[in-house]
This record gives sequence, structure tokens and C-alpha cells, in this order.
Amino acid sequence: MFTTTITPRIGDTDGLRHINNNVVPIWFETARNPIFRIFVPNLELTYKKWNLILAHTETNYIKQIYFGYDVEIRTYVSRIGNSSFTIIQEVWQNGQLRCSGLATMVHFNFIKQKSERIPDDVRKELEKHLITEKELKIKNDKEMKENKKHIEEFDYIESDM
Amino acid sequence: MFTTTITPRIGDTDGLRHINNNVVPIWFETARNPIFRIFVPNLELTYKKWNLILAHTETNYIKQIYFGYDVEIRTYVSRIGNSSFTIIQEVWQNGQLRCSGLATMVHFNFIKQKSERIPDDVRKELEKHLITEKELKIKNDKEMKENKKHIEEFDYIESDM
Amino acid sequence: MFTTTITPRIGDTDGLRHINNNVVPIWFETARNPIFRIFVPNLELTYKKWNLILAHTETNYIKQIYFGYDVEIRTYVSRIGNSSFTIIQEVWQNGQLRCSGLATMVHFNFIKQKSERIPDDVRKELEKHLITEKELKIKNDKEMKENKKHIEEFDYIESDM
Amino acid sequence: MFTTTITPRIGDTDGLRHINNNVVPIWFETARNPIFRIFVPNLELTYKKWNLILAHTETNYIKQIYFGYDVEIRTYVSRIGNSSFTIIQEVWQNGQLRCSGLATMVHFNFIKQKSERIPDDVRKELEKHLITEKELKIKNDKEMKENKKHIEEFDYIESDM
Repeated sequence: MFTTTITPRIGDTDGLRHINNNVVPIWFETARNPIFRIFVPNLELTYKKWNLILAHTETNYIKQIYFGYDVEIRTYVSRIGNSSFTIIQEVWQNGQLRCSGLATMVHFNFIKQKSERIPDDVRKELEKHLITEKELKIKNDKEMKENKKHIEEFDYIESDM
Repeated sequence: MFTTTITPRIGDTDGLRHINNNVVPIWFETARNPIFRIFVPNLELTYKKWNLILAHTETNYIKQIYFGYDVEIRTYVSRIGNSSFTIIQEVWQNGQLRCSGLATMVHFNFIKQKSERIPDDVRKELEKHLITEKELKIKNDKEMKENKKHIEEFDYIESDM
Repeated sequence: MFTTTITPRIGDTDGLRHINNNVVPIWFETARNPIFRIFVPNLELTYKKWNLILAHTETNYIKQIYFGYDVEIRTYVSRIGNSSFTIIQEVWQNGQLRCSGLATMVHFNFIKQKSERIPDDVRKELEKHLITEKELKIKNDKEMKENKKHIEEFDYIESDM
Repeated sequence: MFTTTITPRIGDTDGLRHINNNVVPIWFETARNPIFRIFVPNLELTYKKWNLILAHTETNYIKQIYFGYDVEIRTYVSRIGNSSFTIIQEVWQNGQLRCSGLATMVHFNFIKQKSERIPDDVRKELEKHLITEKELKIKNDKEMKENKKHIEEFDYIESDM
């Protein structure tokens, strides 16, 4: 598991006073940096060196996310195929899972314009972060049960009445 | 079908010289305005009036999108449930389908904090934009076949070698 | 004067229910496309072809901007120097000037990494859009006086009390 | 001085392979959180509690900023007026000042829709971060001189030829 801490900014909220939906995939992209570094250690953005493309994403919006509290993005690997692999990403705030998502990326040769097998050394690194969806669900349910919510969050609905 | 035309800006590209993945869900949000207006005609952003939440999104990245050419976002309705419904959204550029996605939204009462049945008049409006995934595929395949690509797009890969 | 029409999206607002400050420079960037095309007609994003860098920007936040109404971005040229020039940009909504800004750009050779004189043909194109700050102020004051505000905007402050 | 560390994401770059200009004001906004907390300790986004508006910003683009290295945002106070004050913000990366900017904010009562005097306790907090532009220039010049650049940055121009 990779973890990335992000401080929301006021512009990440929208008129409903929660973090806007489109901020989540942006945070997920930031939190993919450690994954990118496995494939391109110095993160060089040229067609000769960069070798990943994004094929598919899914995002589940579970609970509201607030401005004023840091968020933790967690990144796992859930599947390693021949040339593609899938990661799971989550947004946690104040001890609760707020959003989950997945992203399928392809190991891609930009010069030849075709996908290529994920090399063995990269594969070995990715495997260190493998988890099944079932294992993750058990882990998350346990963690959320243990978390006593000490921080009182805003009741913005109340403010509006 | 609703269509929205958007002009990409230079900041929408990333170092790989195509439109960055995270711009697509942002464009899709802009193109959901006509859907929002069916539920909240004046788009008032208060808990008393706004009545939609986003539950789930998926995005498929099919072809590169370029800066320098307008994009057309097409929005269809693919499913109308009791309190939730699903829309399909597409990015077209230079006559080709570049990205497709779906978004499931829920008719939601913010004050009561619970989902509510989609009213009949709203339902009737949504139905005007219904299409099945199969119908859409046939329609899109036909259109792309007919489109002779008159515009020569950049070969940025070449520029890098 | 160049004009660009943009439809705000819900994510452009922030928790104060107006358009977030940082959206304005993003809109201004979109509205610089016609300026970019004078220098780089096909907008090719390579170091061999692209020839502009941004040196300085200023933004004045005058009136709130709302989600739910299109905005018009107006772009003028206010100064043409040897290698640099300055543009003025404005956000208009519902007949009122909401934001104004300026941006100084430099004609720049990326390969040689140095600024270069603005060519005469480019200069001639830029001159078509020249206006002085004084002329612009008179023009804008006149226009705003004539505009009877027919559209009733949201009173979000009221909604919060 | 407040410091905020931010990890750039790939989408923060543009086709010229540096951080896009419009990312800088977004980072500056994130780095204003400690300033906001002086005025609104819990960062509550309601008209009753929030009490700051942004009136004016300026940004100077000095050196290119790269993806692949963290940036440090530094925030100082340069002026405290009756109801308004000005902050200076800087982007540092790899020991070099890359961007500087200023932002003038106004202590504002949203309910009454008018500016209000900055309270004495807030004023005292702001004063802890006061610096003159001259002091800052001396400090920065000294620091940059001392910084031996150990990290070799990308030469993306070379990659393009």
C-alpha cells in the first residue's frame, strides 16, 4: 500500500460545501506517482521514456469529503496481467473511507505505439502491493469499526435552514 | 442527446502533449448542466433546491485527444431507476469517438438526507434522451465509418525522435 | 477584441457558492487561444514551433461570478514592445464586468532559450486589437450603464440565514 | 513564514513539459490555508463564519517548474491595512525561486456585505509573518547563492531535437 496525504484547498469544494466530485480523480493521479516511479524511476515525460497509458477508471462516491481536514489516499494493486494492471485507490478522511476507485493502466511503448509485456522486475515491485478486493473489504470494515470519530465535522445542511 | 462544444486550453494537455486524463471527467461535468436543469431548472446551489448526488462514474480512454481542435461532448440517458439513473457521455474530436463514460446519479433530498423517487415530469424529460448501449454502438460505428478524416492531426511522437 | 463564451460548471464554484477565484485565470488561458494562433497558427506544442512564454499576470476580482449563467471573456492588446506584449482580459456576466486582468507574454525561442523580436506580420495582427486602458474604461462604463439587469441573480447570502 | 510542500502531478504539466502557469495560483490557494485559519480557525465555509475575500493577485513566472520534484510554497505577510492586507507567496523547487506572487485580501462581512476592520488579535498573528520586499530579496538572493544545485533537472528541449 502506498499512502499520500493531501490538504484540500477551498477551490476543491463546490457550492454544496463538500469536495467536488472531480477533485477525487485528480488526487488519485497525484497518488499514482509511486506507481509511475516503478515504471519510470525519474518520471521523465518523453515518448522515449514514459511507458504507461490509462485505459479505464471507476470511482465510487461513498461519503462526503470536507475542506478543513487532510485526506489520505491509499493505493493498492489488485491485478497484474500481461501488459496491463489494475490499481485500487481510496480516499480516507477522519478515519472513514469516503471514495474508492480503480484504474487500469497499460505498459505502452509510445515510439512503437503498442502495448508491451510488463517486465519481471516491475512485476515483482507491483506484487508487493497486491491485495484482493475481499481482503481489502475485511481490512477496511475492521478499521472503520475501530475508529471512534473524535472529530466533529461540519453540519452544513443545518447552516442552510 | 445533449451536445456541448468545448475548446481545450493549453493547460488541459500534459507533458505527453495530449489532453490529460483528468480533463475528461471535468468536461463531462460541464456537459451535465442540461441534465441538472431538468431537476433544478435555475441551477440554484442550496440544500433546499439542489437535489442530485453523483454515486458512481466510469471512464474509458479510447483515443488521444489533442489541443487545437474543439471537442463535442454527447450526453445520453441509458437507465432510469426508481431514485437513480445513469447517463452515458462521450468525447468526440475530428469525427472520432475518443472517450466514453457513464455516471450514475441519485435524486436526493439534502435536508432529509435521503434519496427520493424521480418525479414523473422529470422522468418524462429524461426518457427523451434514452438510448441502449447497443443502439449507441451501432450509431457510433456507422458515424465513424462515414467520417473521412479531413483534418491531419499532429504526430507528436515523431517530433520527439 | 476577441470574445470567448464559457459555460461555468458546478465544480467551478466553491463553498461560498460563487465561482472560485482560481477559475478566472483558467478561463483567461482558454481565451488566449486566438492570441496564440497569431504566433503559432496550428497551436503545435513542440519546442520547435511554440514561441510564447507567460511572464506576468494580474487579476482584479470586482464582482461575484455565478454558476448558472454563461460568461463572456474579452481579450484586448494593451501594449506591444520589442519582444514582449501585454493583453487585458475581462470576465463579463449578465451585462456586468466581474473580473479584469492582464498578462504579459514574451516571444521566445525555446531551442535557443532566448526572447526574440515580435515579427512584423504578427505585430500587425496584434495591433488590430490594441486599446488603451482609458479608452476601455470609458467603453465599459458606458456599456454597464446601458445594461439594464433583466436577470435576477441568486441571493445566496439570504439562503444561509 | 508559512511553508507548504506540494507534490506535482502529471496533469499539472502541459505540452511544453513544465508545470502549467495556472497551477501556480492553485498551489498558492492551498498555501493560504494557514492564513485562512487565523481569520476562521475551523475553516467553516458559511457566510456567517467565513470572512475573507480576494481582491487582487499578481504572479511572476521566473523559472520553469518540473514534474518529478516536490515544490515548497512560502507565504509571508507584506502589508496590514485597516480592513485589507497583502501576502507574498513563492514557489521554490530544487533550491531555486521559480515563481513569486502577491494576493490582497479583504476582511469582509458576508451578511452585511461590507468590509470590516481586521481585529487586533488577528492583526497580531499576521504581524508575526511580516517581511518587507527588500528584506525578502536579500534573504532569497543569499539562499539561492548558497544552494549548490545537486539535482540535475531534465533537459526537455534536447529531447525534442
